[in-house]
Formats: sequence, structure tokens, C-alpha cells
Amino acid sequence: MPVLVMKFGGTSVATLDRIRRAAKRVGVEVSRGYDVIVIVSAMAGETNKLVGFVQDTSPLFDAREYDAVVSSGENVTAGLMALTLQEMDIPARSWQGWQVPLRTTSAHSQARIEEIPTDNITAKFGEGMKVAVVAGFQGVSPEGRITTLGRGGSDTTAVAFAAAFGAERCDIYTDVDGVYTTDPRICEKARKLDRIAFEEMLELASLGAKVLQTRSVELAMRYKVKLRVLSSLSEQTDGSGTIVCDEEDIMESNVVAGVAHSRDEAKMTLVSVEDRPGIASSIFTPLAEAGVNVDMIVQNISEDGRTDMTFSCPTDQVKRAEKALNDARTAGHMTFTDIKADTGVAKVSVVGIGMRSHAGVAAKMFRVLAQEGINIKVITTSEIKISVLIDRKYMELAVQALHDAFELEKAG
Amino acid sequence: MPVLVMKFGGTSVATLDRIRRAAKRVGVEVSRGYDVIVIVSAMAGETNKLVGFVQDTSPLFDAREYDAVVSSGENVTAGLMALTLQEMDIPARSWQGWQVPLRTTSAHSQARIEEIPTDNITAKFGEGMKVAVVAGFQGVSPEGRITTLGRGGSDTTAVAFAAAFGAERCDIYTDVDGVYTTDPRICEKARKLDRIAFEEMLELASLGAKVLQTRSVELAMRYKVKLRVLSSLSEQTDGSGTIVCDEEDIMESNVVAGVAHSRDEAKMTLVSVEDRPGIASSIFTPLAEAGVNVDMIVQNISEDGRTDMTFSCPTDQVKRAEKALNDARTAGHMTFTDIKADTGVAKVSVVGIGMRSHAGVAAKMFRVLAQEGINIKVITTSEIKISVLIDRKYMELAVQALHDAFELEKAG
Repeated sequence: MPVLVMKFGGTSVATLDRIRRAAKRVGVEVSRGYDVIVIVSAMAGETNKLVGFVQDTSPLFDAREYDAVVSSGENVTAGLMALTLQEMDIPARSWQGWQVPLRTTSAHSQARIEEIPTDNITAKFGEGMKVAVVAGFQGVSPEGRITTLGRGGSDTTAVAFAAAFGAERCDIYTDVDGVYTTDPRICEKARKLDRIAFEEMLELASLGAKVLQTRSVELAMRYKVKLRVLSSLSEQTDGSGTIVCDEEDIMESNVVAGVAHSRDEAKMTLVSVEDRPGIASSIFTPLAEAGVNVDMIVQNISEDGRTDMTFSCPTDQVKRAEKALNDARTAGHMTFTDIKADTGVAKVSVVGIGMRSHAGVAAKMFRVLAQEGINIKVITTSEIKISVLIDRKYMELAVQALHDAFELEKAG
Repeated sequence: MPVLVMKFGGTSVATLDRIRRAAKRVGVEVSRGYDVIVIVSAMAGETNKLVGFVQDTSPLFDAREYDAVVSSGENVTAGLMALTLQEMDIPARSWQGWQVPLRTTSAHSQARIEEIPTDNITAKFGEGMKVAVVAGFQGVSPEGRITTLGRGGSDTTAVAFAAAFGAERCDIYTDVDGVYTTDPRICEKARKLDRIAFEEMLELASLGAKVLQTRSVELAMRYKVKLRVLSSLSEQTDGSGTIVCDEEDIMESNVVAGVAHSRDEAKMTLVSVEDRPGIASSIFTPLAEAGVNVDMIVQNISEDGRTDMTFSCPTDQVKRAEKALNDARTAGHMTFTDIKADTGVAKVSVVGIGMRSHAGVAAKMFRVLAQEGINIKVITTSEIKISVLIDRKYMELAVQALHDAFELEKAG
């Protein structure tokens, strides 16, 4: 029998009713002839509650105990899902991470999957079991202790099972019905994509289109697992959602796949930094050590041996960044005259694998923004993405204008 | 190092504050030089919530999935307790049932403990760990699935660990501060016992003095584990509570240890049953099959080949008992003319190992009740217990009068 992996996130299993609704979708796939592996998250809110318990108990907690506590939410859902399927006369049983066993590294709270033996579950499929319900997000270390894969690890669990079992597809059920050309709340012409390439999805995910966890997309890309993102709340059971796949599997596509945005960006400028070899390292090492997520970096041309260094980071990390840089100056690691923080900016990006073969995308983007009177503060580019920082008040306007200009409302 | 087992029930770990308070008591015992094994229940209310989820999902649930879901509450408390101890600089770690592994039978939801290997935990004690926190109530079956020991199974877990590790004592922390000569809410002269024999505790537990689960007392008796019941809420840490032990360890004691009562009793009488060999079996087999917990049984003298049969059962099982008996009559398994149910009765018992060597306890009990004008409806006796059914309205009076008459307010 072909194997299908179906993953249901926290909002899709938030209540017993939602679990029943999810189980019905599983039943549809079973009746289509699949052996199904269902990966479940904890009921919405449960993991946050448990994390709160741990943090209130021990601010600098032992990650091994954190994992033992926090993983229990998924165990509850897995058992309840198995029971719900049994009520529908579908042979099913639950598996906790250590029962599979899903073997991971010992890096508690951010463990990496090392191995998923398939023999136990395959044997049960052979005995007539139709659905294996697996608690997502968790595994077991070489020392026999429970590990977790980090937030969003259930997506990663699902993709890893799909790879291990050679599944025909890995369906990720969530609270949105697919990947859009842009945020529908900002641009009413936003269109759901039928297909998107892994690379594009990675850029969109890291830009804040929080549909799929980045790590799970990377894993799917590496093992060529065909992913589908779809809503557990809609009634459709066929052809819905968005397929995330290899670019060869996309027949013809727009040059630009989507327009992404990120609202909580700050632009920081170090004024009059000495321009010498190693200066970038002197600046960004202390920032990394302080846990500041630096995104875009621009260095101005040098004058009289000094230069300005500009970078962007999340708004709520500005204070931390300032402290790290001032400390580094005090310690004598570098000199600068001032730090300017502009917390009124936003990032807008166009993403598309078509850019590789089509010139002129950047020029068109800059022209469209200029026509709307929007000033560009910082630019960065990659092979399949162009990002700009602009005043936050123009963000919606920029997204709409770019969506129009690249005709994203039309299928490619 | 000597080993001590400490068990904390649901109300003793109901909040993070309560867990901290419990951890402080563990710290006191560690500072006294013990290696401590802590057994924890789920936070009060959690298990009921999970059981509710299972029952709402699947009324005739698969007990294997029930166990997987319901055991998760203890895992949370075990991790939180370990973290709390670590915060107090006490080396501790948590163990789930399968990690010990606490091996049980496959009788899910009512599994029996088969084996507790001590090597893993003993090795950790050898490495400097001071406290092993173990999730109570759960184990693992020969098939590698999670089992639970039934309600109150955490007491049983604690006693089993004490037996396996040859612990000096097994302290059961609960929300009462010990075992009393009778219910203090009914009789203000009730006195806390310093010591009570296993056999007496068993009679008191099964009579509804819900301090310790019967099964855990039986296990303690078999393995000669010295039990102590004490409150996790009081501030005392020494000499408090009640020791439950072998009768040889009780120097001198009252003839009667306590007066127990049970309010929710019903007296049922089958009128004019044919008096033939096998009739008792014809009556009580269908009752047992219907899940009716029959307690006292009295058969009247026979007249003209017919007799009356009287028994007691919990009030809320009367309807079920009537249905079972009427069905048996309809099926032709026996004949009777009427079923009379008296739901206005209560059971009062005096319990004490001293009765074995002291005659006259029954006579004294009957005389005291007669002096108060209380009519006795049914009597049963065992080696160390005499029970009577009386009108419920006299229950408090009977308890107080018996407590006075046997001078239970005075230490033996």
C-alpha cells in the first residue's frame, strides 16, 4: 500500500470536535487505499501552558526536564486521535517518540533527527493497522531520555517520516488553506498558489510567511518529499491547498512567485566606524553573541578611513543590539561616533525562481516603488529574492503596487 | 546511603507553590543523609480532565490508548519536581515508567507491577544524584506500551519502589495528617493514631477511611514496608503522621483501634426465596456480573422451604441490583416474591487487632447501641472487625457513643 503522511497542527486538534474533523480527513485517505501516518501537535495552548510551568519553576531550566514536561501535550493528542479513529472503525494506534523509536541527538530542546526505523510501524501495517498516529515534536536520545525538536518540530517530524517511509506525499494541515502570492489581509488580489518551489518557500518562510517551518522545508527539499499545505478547517478534501515541490515539477510559473513583507524591522546605523580588515567581524560577533538576529547588512563607501555600517534586526532586539555594541566599544574592540536606530521601517521582498533566468526584476521593482514615491533605505539581493527596507507607513502600498506590477493575481 | 521513598498525591502537587513546598520536605530528608525516591501524582484535576477527554472521545475506549493519554499528567509533575529540586541545588532527575523501566502485566488501566529493576537508579545515586523523581501510576507492558495501575496507583508505585530498593520507610504525603480513631468531622474527640497495624488499616481503608489505597497497604504488608501517612500541608517535618506497620512493631495498643462508618449504604432484601443448595450463587452471580459491590450478606432461617436473603450495597447501585435480580427471575434462575430496598441505612464498624485476644467487644458494642436506643438491622463480623447496619439518622450518635465507650480518645 502507498503511504501518506498527514500532519495536524495545534489549532487543527484544539478540541475534541476538531480532532474528529481531522480524523474524518484521515478516513477519506484510508478509503482511497493509503496506509496513513498521522503526526499530531499538542492541543492549541497546551504547549505554552507547559512551557510556562517550566519557566516559572526554573528560569535556567535543565533542558532534559523541559523536554520531558513539554512533550506530554503531543502524547495526549496522539492517544485521543487514535481513539477517535477507532470509533470510526479504522484500525489505529498511537506511538510516542520513544516507542517508534524516533532517534535524535542529545541536543535537548533542539534535537536533530538521526534515524527513524520503519520496521515496527510497517509490521503493524502488515497486520491490518491502517493508521499510525505519532506524537510530533519529540524523540529519544542515545541516553534514553526524551528530546524535543524545538518549536514547530511537528512539521519536521512529518517530513522526516515521509522521507523514511517513502511516502507519496506529506500533507500539512494548518489554519490557512495554502500559500498565497502575498498576505491577503494587505492585498485583496492575493491569489493562492497551486504550486511553489522549495527554494521559494524557504525564502517566503524565513521572511515571515509563517505557513511552514523553515527546517521542515529544507528537509523536504533534501529528500525530495512532496509537501502539501492545506486547511483543516475547510470542507474540501481534494486538489486544495498548495503543493511545495521541486522546481522541475512546476511546469510554467510566474517570474515572481510572491511578495513578502515583515513589519517589525529596525534599521540601525553605526556612524563613522574605522574601516579596517576585520571590522565587520568586530561588529557582528558581539551582536551574534547577544542573540541579535541580524538580517540585511550594508556597508557605505569609505571616506578618510572611516565608514558607516547599516544593518537591520527585529524591533524588539534594538536595545540588546545597542548594549552589545556599546560594550564592545568600551572594551576597545572598535570605535564609532554614534548608533542611530530607526524603528519605523519595514521590509518588502519579491521572491521567485524565475528571476534566475529573467533579468530586469530588480529594475522593475525599484521603478514601481519610485512611481509610488516610496524611498528605498536599504537593498539586498539573492539569486531568487530582492528585499528593500522602506518607511513602515508605505508597506501596504508597496506590497499592493508590486503585486499589481508583477501581475500576481494571474496564474502563471 | 539509606533509601527513603516519599510519595506526593495530587493535592500536594496541585500548584507550582505546592510542588516547591513538597520539594523542601524532600530537601530536609536529603540533608538527613537519605537517597530519596520521590513518587508523584498528576496535579490535582489533571487526571480527571484527561479521563474526561477519553470518555468523551470514545465511551468504550481502547484501554491501551486510555493509558497513553492519562499517564501524561504524572510525567508533567515529575519533570517539574525535578526542576524544582535542581533550583534548590539538589541533584535530581525525572523518570517516566518506561525509563525505569517499571514492568507490569498487559492488563491496561489495571496493570499489576511485575518487576522494578533497581540498577539504573542505583547507578545514578552512585554518581551523586540525590533524588530520583518517578512518575507514579504508570509502567510499561511486555509489548512496550504504557500501562497504568488504576486509580490511586501512585500509592502502590511508592510501596513497590520501597520494597524493591529496601527503603527504610515509605512516606505518603496527602491532605490529611494521619489516620484517626474515627472521622473528626463526626466526633470531635477523634484522636490521631501514632501507629496502626496493616490489618487494621486494610479494614479501615475498605470501610471508606480514604487515606491509603487498599492495594498499597496489602503490598506493604506482604513486603513489610514501613509506611507513614502524613500531611504535606502542615509545617511539621518530624514525628508527625501515622506509622502503618506490622503488629509486632506496636508495643501496646487499645483493643479497638478505630470506629469507621460508611454513609452511602443500602439494605436490600429478597423476600421468599426458595431455600435450596446453590441459591446464594444464583443470586450473587448476576449481581457480580452487573458490577454490584455486595458487602454484608445475611440469610434468615428457613420456613416452609423458603427464606429471605438480605445484603447491602452502595446506594447508587440499587437500581442496577434490582434490574439484575429481576432479569435473573425472568430467565428462570430463581424465584422470589418481592425486592425491598432500604436506602436510609449506614454502616458503623469497630476495628482492632486486639479483638483477637479480647472477648466481649461485640457484646459491648451491641450494649452501647441499645443504650442509645439504636436498632441494629444487620450484623457481620470478622476476626478484627464488627460491622452493623443502622438507620442513617443515628450514624453520628453511634460513632460518638462507641468512641466514648471504647475510650479511643486515650492513647493505648
